Amino acid sequence: MAKQKPRTLSGFMELLPAPQAQFERMVELMRQSYALYGFTPLDTPVIEASEVLLAKAGGETEKQIYRFNKGDSDLSLRFDLTVPLAKYVALHYAELSFPFRRFQIGKVYRGERAQRGRFREFYQADIDVIGDGKLDIVNEAEIPAIIYQTFTSLGLRRFQVHVNNRKVLSGFYAMLGLTEKSGDIMRVVDKLPKIGAEKVRELLTGDGLALSGEQADEILKFISITGSNNTVLSALKEYCGRHELFDQGLDELSAVVKYLGTFGVPEENFAVDLTIARGLDYYTGTVYETFMLDHPEIGSICSGGRYDNLAEYYTDKQLPGVGISIGLTRLFYVLQEQGYLNGALLTAPADVLVLPMTDDLSPAIALATALRGAGIRAQLYTEQKKFKQKMSYADKLGVPYILLLGEDEITQGKASLKDMRTGEQELLSAAEIIERIRLALAGSAAQAPIREPEN
Amino acid sequence: MAKQKPRTLSGFMELLPAPQAQFERMVELMRQSYALYGFTPLDTPVIEASEVLLAKAGGETEKQIYRFNKGDSDLSLRFDLTVPLAKYVALHYAELSFPFRRFQIGKVYRGERAQRGRFREFYQADIDVIGDGKLDIVNEAEIPAIIYQTFTSLGLRRFQVHVNNRKVLSGFYAMLGLTEKSGDIMRVVDKLPKIGAEKVRELLTGDGLALSGEQADEILKFISITGSNNTVLSALKEYCGRHELFDQGLDELSAVVKYLGTFGVPEENFAVDLTIARGLDYYTGTVYETFMLDHPEIGSICSGGRYDNLAEYYTDKQLPGVGISIGLTRLFYVLQEQGYLNGALLTAPADVLVLPMTDDLSPAIALATALRGAGIRAQLYTEQKKFKQKMSYADKLGVPYILLLGEDEITQGKASLKDMRTGEQELLSAAEIIERIRLALAGSAAQAPIREPEN
Repeated sequence: MAKQKPRTLSGFMELLPAPQAQFERMVELMRQSYALYGFTPLDTPVIEASEVLLAKAGGETEKQIYRFNKGDSDLSLRFDLTVPLAKYVALHYAELSFPFRRFQIGKVYRGERAQRGRFREFYQADIDVIGDGKLDIVNEAEIPAIIYQTFTSLGLRRFQVHVNNRKVLSGFYAMLGLTEKSGDIMRVVDKLPKIGAEKVRELLTGDGLALSGEQADEILKFISITGSNNTVLSALKEYCGRHELFDQGLDELSAVVKYLGTFGVPEENFAVDLTIARGLDYYTGTVYETFMLDHPEIGSICSGGRYDNLAEYYTDKQLPGVGISIGLTRLFYVLQEQGYLNGALLTAPADVLVLPMTDDLSPAIALATALRGAGIRAQLYTEQKKFKQKMSYADKLGVPYILLLGEDEITQGKASLKDMRTGEQELLSAAEIIERIRLALAGSAAQAPIREPEN
Repeated sequence: MAKQKPRTLSGFMELLPAPQAQFERMVELMRQSYALYGFTPLDTPVIEASEVLLAKAGGETEKQIYRFNKGDSDLSLRFDLTVPLAKYVALHYAELSFPFRRFQIGKVYRGERAQRGRFREFYQADIDVIGDGKLDIVNEAEIPAIIYQTFTSLGLRRFQVHVNNRKVLSGFYAMLGLTEKSGDIMRVVDKLPKIGAEKVRELLTGDGLALSGEQADEILKFISITGSNNTVLSALKEYCGRHELFDQGLDELSAVVKYLGTFGVPEENFAVDLTIARGLDYYTGTVYETFMLDHPEIGSICSGGRYDNLAEYYTDKQLPGVGISIGLTRLFYVLQEQGYLNGALLTAPADVLVLPMTDDLSPAIALATALRGAGIRAQLYTEQKKFKQKMSYADKLGVPYILLLGEDEITQGKASLKDMRTGEQELLSAAEIIERIRLALAGSAAQAPIREPEN
């Protein structure tokens, strides 16, 4: 028979079992972190009607959409989890309670040019809090805590949540009489870490924006305000009283900073950063980006912000919200590339491999059944292979324990438990085996999927 | 602004938060069950190259495929998890260890005619064990235990795993000289529970198959062998020695039955059933179907079997396997329709809603942070609403507890914990609150998502 060459499309991540287990562990911990803060899991379709999904989209995004016809229907694959959330909230508005807090971890699709580390199918892990008409500032103050909890639970330590407020920025530009240009200016300023201050000044005073040198200097002075949270807030207070929007933004920023410690975020994992704006006009208040301290070149690994109108394309209801998103597939790829995955994490499909050495398999099956009843992941290995091959199989899977059951063991009502890491072997009863494995696994269950390389 | 009417495509399940939480609990328990038996989680792309995905498909399946072009690529959405597994195993053969045991729970796509209870996007929950060249019969004997464990953990009790062996059937038809017609005969016999014996006899002796009355009677006699496992096996022994394939099939069936009890499957949850064959030629040994005793009309809720050649369209390697699949979306829909979902299952996004009654939110935030640190899902509610509206919000979410923090409580370093089910309210310290909620939640964590209606 002619064979079809098996292949996986480029830009689509497909992992081998061990890294897949690490990926799953990351997803599990993210779900747990999000749930701790009272977010409910949602799952929306991957396919939506194009007219619904693309009500807002345009430009670059639209070109990347996977869009096609099936019968009479014009369909598209979701390209993020925000538009489906907007649709969901508008559609089910009457049945939801607000503030509505949901998380969704799911695949999204963008037909980007294939290149290393760029994915066309990738997971996003989003949380959003949606208010009905209003939404309290405390929701914005809580977000850095959720980011902190999430990455910490994954095992990441050296990262920092950067926070700014769009009202502070807009108010500042209004003071300079640059309100109409502020969107374009922010997009330029957003490039500061990549292109540097000089180049930013060039772009600001260049033909496009045509700011005066004075205006450009004011802007560069403003965005160069750095230091501890209190230093930055004090410097910003100097601008107070000149524009209402600025004052409001500074109040919000101060509230976010004020509750940080109470929310459990250490000061070193947080920074007020006047250079971040998030490109999108969508955001109206607090904005967030998160950086790995040792790999700023990767860019933000968790971003988001406050918006005033989630679902304006679907409903007249005013639905303000705040949300963040983690590009999980890319993050995993980067962690793998940078050697951040914890090689000691248990990724074997089973905690113990049961190897019967007799023709009658009943004692081995009974033992496996007892182990499973006690919550221990047990795999029976009954293939007709040489002992050496069986051991090599156990090695490759990375199972921490094997259990040998020969005539001797069966006669004594016991089994030989071999610790694959130490090589030690002991003759134990089923109850002893369960106790032993449970104890060992309780330790490994606490292991994080990320382990930062030591410097 | 003109609004786009929000809608979700027909045939796509989109759940409200409470049923979504129930669905997620089912998925979580399935993952746990599969993991207990040593299966590793996999995740393959939703999109594959059409030439790869459709190497084998044809006829009805191909018509249902979501297939489209993006740039120069001819792409298709996966319509099951078996073909992607075949591709995966063929592609990564050198890096896998065999037997390779994987589970995958993911969405698949079939553009079926929209009708109630039929889905175009639905979850399948699959496990497969793939051997390299050979695969021991114990793997087939273990499958009913996995099905039993999975449904039992979900809370289902009144179900039965039906098992047959294709070799027994093929061997039997060979005895009657009907080998060439056996595929067609099995497809007719498969309809027995739906159309009855008389109609089956008509189809067998009709123009298409044209069996003699004697042959039809032999077949009807054979498939009417029922009773306890031992009764059926004894009746089958009468046919022994007449055809090698039959004898081999009977040995396999006997082995499956022999180890059942040791694998922990109660006899009442299992039946040898000579009428099931699974339509597909793909299966070559043991086959499985699973029925809800009170709802046989729903059909099989978990099916599968043994096959000899998983990836023959991709590789010359002989890769026999055994697997089962649960159509999770349809199962959930049916359970919901039949009132089988456990209404007492905790589906709230949080275990406790923290309600600050003072302007300074620090004490409430500190308490929420402490609760989260202890693994309790805590939501802060800080919107400016009347007390009655706050209580109504807590009610709608279904949170089991609320915590009230006013000046009095704060002065005493305590908070008022209100049990929403009993209405009781107590002034407690943070440590006492944590202890109290943990204890209550330990009980509800054991709740199953399915509760069978009492008859």
